[in-house]
Order: sequence, then C-alpha cells, then structure tokens
Amino acid sequence: MAGSLMLGCASAIAFLLSSPANAMVGKVDGNPDADAGINREAARRWTLADQLTVPRLWSVAIAVDGKSAAYVTRVADAVSDTTLSRLTLVDLESGSSRELLRAPWIDQLRRIPGSAAWSALIDRGDGVQLYRIEPGGHIAPIVTHPATARFGDVEDRILPGYAHAPLTIGVRAYSWSPDGRRLFFVTLDSVSDERQILIDEKVSDQRGLRRQLGQATASIYLRAPDGKVTLIARRPRSDRTTIASKGDVIWTEKDLRYPVKEVDPGGGERRVTMAWSFAEGRAREVASTRDYVYWQMRGPRGGQLASDGLGDTREIVEVGDDGRRHSYGRFPFSIGHGATFGGLRASDGSQTVVNIRSLDDPRFGIGVIDRRGVRPIWGNGSLTKCDFAPTLAVAACLAEGQSLPPSLVTVDIASGRVRTVASISPEHEKVAPLHVTPRSWTNRYGHKVTGYVVWPRDYEKGQRYPAIVVNHGNDADQRFALQDNQWEYPVQTLAERGYVVLLINEASSQLNADLRAADQAWGLQRTTLPPERMRELLWLTGAASFEDAVSELADEGIIDRERVGIAGYSRGSQLVNVAMTQSNVFRAASSGDGAYLEPVYEPDMPDSYRAVFGGPPFDPKVLPNYLALSPSLRASVACGAILQQVAAPHTGAIDFYKALRKAGVPAQISLFPGEGAASDETHVFHIPSNRMAAMEENIAWFDYWLLGKRDRASPFAERYAEWDEMKAALPDRCR
Amino acid sequence: MAGSLMLGCASAIAFLLSSPANAMVGKVDGNPDADAGINREAARRWTLADQLTVPRLWSVAIAVDGKSAAYVTRVADAVSDTTLSRLTLVDLESGSSRELLRAPWIDQLRRIPGSAAWSALIDRGDGVQLYRIEPGGHIAPIVTHPATARFGDVEDRILPGYAHAPLTIGVRAYSWSPDGRRLFFVTLDSVSDERQILIDEKVSDQRGLRRQLGQATASIYLRAPDGKVTLIARRPRSDRTTIASKGDVIWTEKDLRYPVKEVDPGGGERRVTMAWSFAEGRAREVASTRDYVYWQMRGPRGGQLASDGLGDTREIVEVGDDGRRHSYGRFPFSIGHGATFGGLRASDGSQTVVNIRSLDDPRFGIGVIDRRGVRPIWGNGSLTKCDFAPTLAVAACLAEGQSLPPSLVTVDIASGRVRTVASISPEHEKVAPLHVTPRSWTNRYGHKVTGYVVWPRDYEKGQRYPAIVVNHGNDADQRFALQDNQWEYPVQTLAERGYVVLLINEASSQLNADLRAADQAWGLQRTTLPPERMRELLWLTGAASFEDAVSELADEGIIDRERVGIAGYSRGSQLVNVAMTQSNVFRAASSGDGAYLEPVYEPDMPDSYRAVFGGPPFDPKVLPNYLALSPSLRASVACGAILQQVAAPHTGAIDFYKALRKAGVPAQISLFPGEGAASDETHVFHIPSNRMAAMEENIAWFDYWLLGKRDRASPFAERYAEWDEMKAALPDRCR
Repeated sequence: MAGSLMLGCASAIAFLLSSPANAMVGKVDGNPDADAGINREAARRWTLADQLTVPRLWSVAIAVDGKSAAYVTRVADAVSDTTLSRLTLVDLESGSSRELLRAPWIDQLRRIPGSAAWSALIDRGDGVQLYRIEPGGHIAPIVTHPATARFGDVEDRILPGYAHAPLTIGVRAYSWSPDGRRLFFVTLDSVSDERQILIDEKVSDQRGLRRQLGQATASIYLRAPDGKVTLIARRPRSDRTTIASKGDVIWTEKDLRYPVKEVDPGGGERRVTMAWSFAEGRAREVASTRDYVYWQMRGPRGGQLASDGLGDTREIVEVGDDGRRHSYGRFPFSIGHGATFGGLRASDGSQTVVNIRSLDDPRFGIGVIDRRGVRPIWGNGSLTKCDFAPTLAVAACLAEGQSLPPSLVTVDIASGRVRTVASISPEHEKVAPLHVTPRSWTNRYGHKVTGYVVWPRDYEKGQRYPAIVVNHGNDADQRFALQDNQWEYPVQTLAERGYVVLLINEASSQLNADLRAADQAWGLQRTTLPPERMRELLWLTGAASFEDAVSELADEGIIDRERVGIAGYSRGSQLVNVAMTQSNVFRAASSGDGAYLEPVYEPDMPDSYRAVFGGPPFDPKVLPNYLALSPSLRASVACGAILQQVAAPHTGAIDFYKALRKAGVPAQISLFPGEGAASDETHVFHIPSNRMAAMEENIAWFDYWLLGKRDRASPFAERYAEWDEMKAALPDRCR
Repeated sequence: MAGSLMLGCASAIAFLLSSPANAMVGKVDGNPDADAGINREAARRWTLADQLTVPRLWSVAIAVDGKSAAYVTRVADAVSDTTLSRLTLVDLESGSSRELLRAPWIDQLRRIPGSAAWSALIDRGDGVQLYRIEPGGHIAPIVTHPATARFGDVEDRILPGYAHAPLTIGVRAYSWSPDGRRLFFVTLDSVSDERQILIDEKVSDQRGLRRQLGQATASIYLRAPDGKVTLIARRPRSDRTTIASKGDVIWTEKDLRYPVKEVDPGGGERRVTMAWSFAEGRAREVASTRDYVYWQMRGPRGGQLASDGLGDTREIVEVGDDGRRHSYGRFPFSIGHGATFGGLRASDGSQTVVNIRSLDDPRFGIGVIDRRGVRPIWGNGSLTKCDFAPTLAVAACLAEGQSLPPSLVTVDIASGRVRTVASISPEHEKVAPLHVTPRSWTNRYGHKVTGYVVWPRDYEKGQRYPAIVVNHGNDADQRFALQDNQWEYPVQTLAERGYVVLLINEASSQLNADLRAADQAWGLQRTTLPPERMRELLWLTGAASFEDAVSELADEGIIDRERVGIAGYSRGSQLVNVAMTQSNVFRAASSGDGAYLEPVYEPDMPDSYRAVFGGPPFDPKVLPNYLALSPSLRASVACGAILQQVAAPHTGAIDFYKALRKAGVPAQISLFPGEGAASDETHVFHIPSNRMAAMEENIAWFDYWLLGKRDRASPFAERYAEWDEMKAALPDRCR
C-alpha cells in the first residue's frame, strides 16, 4: 500500500511535470490533436447547441452488488425550453445504458438498501416527492406530501434557486437506515403570513428585497420497520439546516442522529445534533456547536481529516478529539472539496475514501486513507461525482475533463484501476476535442495562478489571435465545459471562432498566507487587514493576473494586445468590473450577474463592506476606499466596452451601467427574464432560450468590439446601430 | 358689483383682523365654545372611530334646474375593512337626503345634460365602468369594457393608487357634450408584456422598483347622437395624459378637443391638443406645448387668469394671448388651487367663477370674475368641491371647516348668499367641536407661517400642556380633520387626551421671493441656488418654524417644553426627520411614509438630488452637503424617539431606522400591509384597520415617550418592554 501511495503521488507529479506551460505551448507547434487520437476530419466542430446541452452531472448511485449504477444529469431541453433531469441506468459490465425517466427535477438519487431498487426525490407534476424506482423502470411513490413550499427565484420562496426553475416541495430530504428498514424524511409546509403590521427587523429585512420571502415549517419523520410513521420534530423557518436538509443523518444501532439549527432570540446560531432513540421514542441533544462545519470526515484513527498548510507545505492531517494531530505527509492535492462527493468511511473504520483535488492543473480524484497513509486514485480528467458500494471496494463515478466529454467509470479501490463504462453524452463525443493546455502564471504581486489555454481550432504559430480571459474564481479545472465556471461565455465556440480563450483562476488562498488572511477577513467579516491590503489581495491581484497573463501571451507572439476581452460572472464579475476600471488592457468585457463592491449594497451588508472598505461610503475618511475600488465610482477611467448580463435588475449593476453611460463608456445591460412576472432567471441560468441568447449576445459583443465584425444573422444585430453610436462617441481612452 | 367686490374684500380683511393669534388665545380665557352655540354637556367627545369615519369629500354635481344635487364621499367601513364610496342625492330645497349607492369606487359624478339623471364611473364588482343613475336610484350601464388595467399600489399597475384599494379599469374617463347627445369616453386595455430580454433603460427603469409596472393602451371613443361609436384614437402607455384622463375635453359646435401627450424617442414630452371634427370624422392637431399646464382658466377678457406676485403685493391678473396683462387688483387670496374645483366660464364669456384660497387662516371660497372686478364669496369654513348650474347662477358646494363638520350648501352667485342644506356626516355633528384658533408665526429667518392651535377640550389657563406639532406642507386650512393633512395623527383625539396640537404650515413660497426661488429650483431640478441655501430655504426654515412656534407657546405658559412631539407624513416626514436631526426640542416624533433626502435615492432621482445637494454623495466635494442634511447621516445627533410608519418597505426609511438604532436613538419602523402580498397600503392609507392601528400606535408612542404613560389596553402595549429597553439605553442627549 505504501508502494501504491508513492506511485500515486509520483504519477501526479509526473502529470504536473508533463504539462508546464511552455512545453504545452511548444506542442502546439506540431499537431496538438495528435495525442487525442481523434480524426478531426471525421468529427465536427463545437456549436452553440453543444454548449447548451453539456449535461450537468448531478449524482450517481451504485447498486449494492456493484453490477449496475444509476445516475442523474440535468440537460437543457430546447423543445420545452426547460432544463430537464434525466435518470439513466447503466449495466457496469456491458456498459449498456437505459434512460428510465425525464422529469423537471430529480434529486437525492440513492440505492434502497436491501433491494435492487433506487429511490429519489422527483417532481412529476405534483411537486417534489419521494419515489421508488425499480430496475425495470417502474416508478411508485414512497412518500407524498402536499407540495406548498416554493424553492427558486420566485415570490414567496423558502430558499433561492440554484440553476433551476421554481420548485414546489412536498418531501425535502430523506435517508435510509443501512439495513433499509427505517426511513428518515423531511416534509415542508408553507405557512401563509397572516396579514399583519410588521415592525423593525421584519421591515428592515425587506430592504432591497426583490421577492418576498415565504414562510414554512419542516416536519421530520421516521418510518419504523413496521411501517409506522412517527413525527420526530416540527421545525421552524429559522432552522435552515432542516429546511435545506439533504438527508445527511447518521444511523447507529440505537438511534438516528440528525442536525438542526437553533437560533437564539438575539440571532445567535447553534448547530445541534439530536439523537432519536428507537427504544425510547424520543430525541435528546447530543452535541452543539457555534462553528459552521463545512466538511467533516473521520479518518482511520477516529479523528477529523483535513488539509492543512499552504502550497508546498500542504499536508493531510487527522486531528483527534483529544487534539492530537497525525500528519499523513505532504501531497500536491487537497481533500474535502465541495464540488464533488464528500467521502465515506468503512463500517469497520479502517479506511476512509475522500475526494481529492490537485493543486496545479486542478482535477479531482479519490483519496484512499488508511493507517498506512494516503493513496490517490486518478482517472483521465477528473472523477467528480462518485458513489461507493458498502464495502468501499468499488465505486461508480462520473468522469470528465477539459477535453473529455463526461462518462461513467468504475473504480476498483484496491488496484486503483479506473475503467470507462459508458459515455454520458454521445453527442459530445462526436465533437472533435479542442486543444486545451494547462498553464500557470505568477503575477506582479508574486501570486501564482493556474488556468488553461483553450486554443483556436486551427491555431497557427506566428499568427496573433484575439483573446478572451474568462474567470469565475477558482473553478477552472478538469471538468467539461462546466457551466458553473464558464457560464454563458461559450468558451469552446469562441475558440472555434478564432479566439484564444484563457481560463484563469484567481490566486489560491491555499498557496499564500497573505491571500488566506484576506480571504478569512472577508469571509468572517473582520477588519484585520487595512482596506488597501484587502483591495490588493482580493481584487487588484486578480486584475493583475489577467493583465500579466495577457502580457505574457502577447510577448510570446500568440495573442494580439489590441484585441483582448474579459468575461466572468458572479465572483468573476467583480474581477471583470475591477479590471475594467483599473486597467486599460481589455477592449471589451462581459460581466455576469454580479455587483458586489457597489456602494449601494453597503447598508444591506455593512459587516462585509466594513471588512473590505473600512466602513460606509458616507464616512469622509472611508469614501476614498470606495473611490479606489467601487466600479461605478471609477467609470470615468474605464476605456473598454462593458456588457452586463443579469438575472434580475440588480441595483448595483444598474448603477454601474448608468455611471458608464454617463462617462461616455460604451455599456449595455441585458436582463434575462424568468418563467413569468413572478419569477426570475437564476444566477446560474436555467432557461435554455436565455442561455442561448446570452451566448449569442456575448459572441456578438466580443466580435463587434474586439474584431469590428458584424453578423446580420445574429439575434443581436439590431443592436449594432446603437453600438456604432457609442463607438463613435468613445474617446480613445484605452491607448 | 364694484361695491360687492369691495365688500367681499373688506369682509375678508375683517375676518383676518378678527382672528389674530393673540386675540384668539385670549378668547380661550373665557369660554372658547360660547360662540359655537353647542351645549358641550349634550355632545360627546371625539373617538378614534370618529377620526376614521370623517368622510373624504369627493365630488358634487348639481342638477340642471338647481333643485337637487348628488355628491360622492369616501368613508371607511369597519365591517368590510375597506373604504367605500357613497353616492347621496339631496333635495336642495328641503335638505332631505337619500343614499343611492355604496360601492368600492364611484368617480367622475356628473349630471347628464338634457336629462334628470346622473352618470358616474362605478366599480360594482366587474371593474370601473360607466353607469347612468336615475334620480329614483336605478342604475344601468352606459359603457362596459372588459376591465384589465390595474390602478393602485399593486403588481402590474398602470398608475399608482391614491388612498384607494387596487382598482381594475374598464372605462377610464368620459365627458358629455353640452347638449348631452354626444359622449366622449376612454377605455383601457392592459397589455401583457411578452417574455423578453430587456436592455438598457428598460432595465435601469426597474432600479428600486417594488412593484412591476404594467402596460396598457388607451382607446378614445366618441358616441354620436345616432348611437354610433367611433374609435378616435388608440394611444400608447407613454401618453399619460390619456391614461390618467378625467375627461377634461372641450366641446365646440364643430369639434371635440382632447389633450394627448406625445413622447419623442429622446424622451421629450409635448402636450398636444387634438380636434376631432364631427363633419370630417377625423382628428387634427390644433395646439402643442412643452410646458406643463397646472391650471388654466380664461377670464372675461379672453385671457388666462392667474395669481401673481408675492404676499402683500399679490394680485389677480388676466394675461391675453397677445401678452397684455390686466390686473384686477390685490387680494388676500389666490386663485387656481388644485385641492378644490377648478373654475367655470359662462357660455357668453362674461363671467368666470374660480376657486379662491385666503392667505391667512387659509380657507376656500368662490371668486366671481367679470370685467368689473373680482368678487369673493365665502361661507362658514371653506367651500371646497363646487358644481355650478349651466347659467352659473347657483352652485352646490361641499362646505367644511376646522371645527365644522361637512355639509352640503347652495351658493347664490349673484347675492353671494350661502345656505346650508344638509349635513354630510350627522355622526360628526354629535361631537362637540374642539376649539381651534388660527395663528401665524414668524421664524428666525423672517419667514411667516400660518397654522392652527387645536386646544385640549378642558384647557385651563396657567397649566402647561404637552404639545404635538403636525405638518404636511401647506394644507393645514379650514377643512375638517382632513386625512390629507393630518394623516393618521389623530389630532382631535390627541386634543381630547390633553395635548395642545399645533397644525403648522410651511412658510409659503407665495409670500417670499427667496422661498419661491428655492421651490422653483427644486421643482425644475435646477442648480440655481447653492446647496446651503436650498437646505435653509426648503428644510431648515421649516424645522425652525416648528421650534420657534413651540418656543412662543412655551413662553406664553401654554405648553411644556419638555413634552413636545412632532408628526408629519410625506413632505411632513422630511421636515420631521430634519427637525429631529437638527434640533433637540422634540422628545418624540412620528414620521409617515417618506424618506426623500436619504442618499440611497440619489441614483433614482439624480437631477432632483443635484438641485438639493449639488451632486451625488460619493463626490467628496458634495458629501458634506449630505452630511449636513440627510437624516440617516445625522442620526448620531438625534435625541428624541422616532417612529416611522410606512406603507411599503422604503429603503430610505429603513436606512434612517437602522442608523438611529445604531446610534442608540430610540426608533421603530412599522410597515402597514396591503390587501395581500401583491399589493401595498397606499401613501395616504385606505385600509381602515391600518388607519385605526396607525392612530393607536401614534397615541401609544407619544403617550409613552412624552408623558411616560402606558395603556395596557393599547394594541401596542406589547411594545412597552422594548421601548423601556431603548429608553434605558438612551443617553439623555436632548438636554
């Protein structure tokens, strides 16, 4: 096992060494597709339809015997103009697949212990309910509860939506006991507010609220082996742990342990673990903490596993309840990343499997931890969603990479062998992969960033190409055209159209103590660093990374300095807006659905803004910090054309738009509608027609402002006249 | 007639002289009720139910023969918890009254020329439609149109509401030709927005919007004598003149002249008068202006009538189309006040009747203007809504005063005789009138303000009383417990409870050139005055008026300086918020539904804020002007307890609340709900239960903070514990 560990570690390092930036750029000289084994002539190019239909890999569940697996993907459906969930069953030996169900929503797919059937939360038209799915495809309800509580960017929502249409919830979460004989489940009931006078916090909570918040109660039930259902607890709206439950409970022989959140009258929150005794038929509190627990997994020594340290000194440790720390050594990967599966511990405690993420060319794998050490398992690209058979001997995973369309794979844990079973999206297999090379850069602050160069299909050395930087924080990694990362910036299509696309991550706070200090001050809303340091470490270094990366590639003769754009949503939109108001490198930008840093939001999040700026903007001592960073207050120094695409009419984005227009900077703001007047598009778009339009708009915008190109067939062609006017009025400030 | 004119003028002056402040205060020494002719023992005191059920006088229409009149009032109905419209018919000779109809909405009551019947827009459950009302009470539809366009503080509204529940409109406006044979009417149709991507202004227009704006088209029809209905024009949403039409058209022998608004692509607006030729069956443009016309009435010389000049130099003039100016002389009243009727011109042009408003102890009357001069007609209190028989020989008016419950009166125009016909609210006749004395004050800036002292029922000289100042701009005048003025501050009940209530107007810009210049700069959004002058002339002088009035009455031994509160809504809330953050005179305040001056609104109304502050708050040169005036930025200098009652969760009001709480100043914000989640209470409240609760809350608030009184029966008694905490934590900053 120690050998395996060393091997795993060595291969990871080898992988890293095989792909330094220059080596890969060098490769392009020859035939960048040679090693992909694909006949480009026979395969087709990326289209926007391909961008739209990249499946979102949602979950996978392996059968107890390891012979089959079911998985859920979410895929845009152009006909219904909705994003549909698809449930597919795969024979892991033959690789034959069968789609069992398409529905507006499928979630929490699990095997039912003690049976060959599956269970899942499904919306079949009467809200989200719990169903049993037979291997043959028959679907029958297990728990049905009147669906009244709404989730999504909709009026009276209980929780906001994440890339989904408004949902109505009957059953919120569930869990089977390991023997499959007991069932834990949570139902929600919306509570109509009585018409009443609201006072103080109930009024101020509505400041700037676009949609009314709904009220709901959660009911926690246990179904016993004899079929009797007991109400364990009724929980209030303030218990967001239960409202947002995914069924994360712990089954022991004697009791069921479930987490709840208790909120003091003063607003203090505690995470409480309750234990429901099967024998006594009542619950008691067994643990309570005020800390927010992000990821928790016990290791073979019974302690908590964690990644620790910075960069090259990064190690994997296990900390016992007595505080004793065991180090497994240093590894070029971290554990506990939220984007994939969490982890699982063998029933005898001897082994824990966790997800791991490499630091350079970030990809995901499986870490096998036992008393002897940590052994990584990597596949091609990344192993993202994984589910393990109860013995932990075998896993079914969804695998994907920057140039690797998603597939279902099996992983033999003992040997580390990864075997591809079936393609998840055959249509994407028909697209000739683009050449994508990992690369890293160190910016003027000495901060190292990772990322990828997505090369134009027919890249020719010596020719200079237009370029677009795309950023969304830190999730440019070995996943396939990931919407979370590239949003509605059609990276692959842009490369087909002749752009060099640079997917650039932010400098990671895992690598640098200063960055980590700034990250923590921001996250914990503390004023431990002065505003000028916060500005530098959280925003200016990001803008500098993009500038310096552009400069390097221009120096190498790859890109044309005069035709460089930038795009990013959410966290990326902050960096785009800052870059556009601090730098004159970028001639055009697309900024997606974000406006943090705008002064208008200070009263809504005073603690967060105090951590960043030192206080409110109306304090004359603090105002200079806003003038130095808030994009709308720096509109007059912007020089490139700035498009904002938003899912709702955010005041901060509107303020930035108006300030840009007032300053004579070409600017547009486009609002993509929800299903109707009472709902909005979500932050990560879920309405296919919006997604397609946003991609078209980005292409039209960059083609126009970077290349001077017009496409009369573009749905945005009617905008050219106004863009012409803005262009004519623009003082040539970028030079 | 010249004699009458002189007499009228002289009696107005005599009236003024008979009621200087000191004389009236002196009167209180004796028996202030002696002149009211009311036996206090036999009459009862004011209750909150009386406050609630003061009728709003809506409109009156006199029959062609002058023998009867119909009128509409709007009165709170506790049972249905709605404000209902009531239509009453009165025999003008006998005074006998009969209620013909109660409905959610009755508007535009008019006599039908050539018949004894009336017409009105009525909502009988299928939206607002045009009906015919026979003198016997039978009601039949004239025009019914599918009601789809919503008016009110509700989602998808076409226009906001003014003190009414959401309405759905079929017929928007109408007008009869003088012979009653032709009918002009406007219908509305809501237009569902197609689901579409919005760009630029259509996005920025939604900044800070609580309710989505609906779309509608207006259709203008003419019904000919033969009954044939012709569509004259279909008008877009941007034609707010037609959308908001009240049927103000001009009928000539040959054509119908109706106003529309034309909006250029650049946003420029023109008011266009169209003439529809009966013979040709088509319309042409006959006039166009970019000016906003507030009030327009031609005089006996064919020119436009107007009030001109300032204060003592105030005169009534008529300006011909050739620019020649005829002065009728100086009068202690103005013409063209929007709160009452507009005016009417005799068909031969020899005489025009207009509404007039006296400058001191402001009350309303009728001005009769012919070539010989201007003759005022006054009644007891005010003549507010008036309608005239076609010959202008006789009018039916609604009359009321500070101590005079509303009644229907007739006015003989030739003799000027005013005769009371019938009480409009018999229940209020049973309440012993409170003693109310007009008074004026000149503040430290030399600005004169008018107002009223409402005395405690059992006022005893030598004893000092707690006092509350109530302001809403300039509408403290001779009307009866007017909701528009005193909102949900139950002035009369507060006087019953032992408070001296001071109804104080702002300094009138009709009296002072500086004030007028500031008013105009603000209204026209121009930076003609520096911010410090705007601050002084538009807000600080108001606060100073209140302070100085309090000081005078304290010096006179009437009120107790340590127990003075202040209340005001809308414009009044601005002055309350400024007073509370500039002065330490007021120990408690109630501020109603307003937050202009808060920096958060600058981006929504940059021109208005530039006129006041000189620019946005993020300009370091401008920020000091906000720090000198914006209430939330001055919270730390406030000392009294501040309640804000709001009809919607206005961000500015929330910012002020939060700033006060942060500064340790006792503060509460209370939000009064609409009919449901999709609608709001209106700026002037219309839901009786809200009105009652807001009045109860004001009483509880002032009793607690000014008098230290608790009433366990108050619906707000549960708040005392928190108020106790705030009081205990308050540094005694007012001293």
